[in-house]
Amino acid sequence: MRLLVIYDIGDDGLRVHAAELLKDFGLERVQYSAFAGDLTKNRREMLEIRVSALFAQDGRCRPTDRVYVLPMCDDCFGGARFLGQQAHFPDRRRDRFEVL
Amino acid sequence: MRLLVIYDIGDDGLRVHAAELLKDFGLERVQYSAFAGDLTKNRREMLEIRVSALFAQDGRCRPTDRVYVLPMCDDCFGGARFLGQQAHFPDRRRDRFEVL
Repeated sequence: MRLLVIYDIGDDGLRVHAAELLKDFGLERVQYSAFAGDLTKNRREMLEIRVSALFAQDGRCRPTDRVYVLPMCDDCFGGARFLGQQAHFPDRRRDRFEVL
Repeated sequence: MRLLVIYDIGDDGLRVHAAELLKDFGLERVQYSAFAGDLTKNRREMLEIRVSALFAQDGRCRPTDRVYVLPMCDDCFGGARFLGQQAHFPDRRRDRFEVL
């Protein structure tokens, strides 16, 4: 399934760690604090377990830290607008982006 | 429709300006650079026009600036996971959030 993951993580080291984890799962950075890509249901579950474990085990986690894992169906994705010269979202079916 | 708007905006003033615009449209901040809420189709179009105009007219816009406007249907929203003590997403039908 197509996924978007966005996060607010206060600690620099923990934020880098989380970004590396998302990259390891094959997701691509689409904004500074947003990754996207396709994962199977199992891989998605594994990712969520790893993210939760990272925060549970890491003393650098703050009460304000947040991670949202958001599925995007074809309809939602088809209705999305991506504004910006460097707008990017990994998807073979869509390569149209609009310049701001 | 339920919308998520995420952005990367390099200039501090322009970023604040964009956040105020999103707030003016009734969207709520759900992460540092992410707003969400319900808008009609017309209001959404108006918002996109205003965002585009803001960037077109403002000399502070950078090539790396990006704004994504993402619809979220009930299925996508129902399948989302919100991790974090202060995780927040405006929706009367869902108030379950998970602690990291």
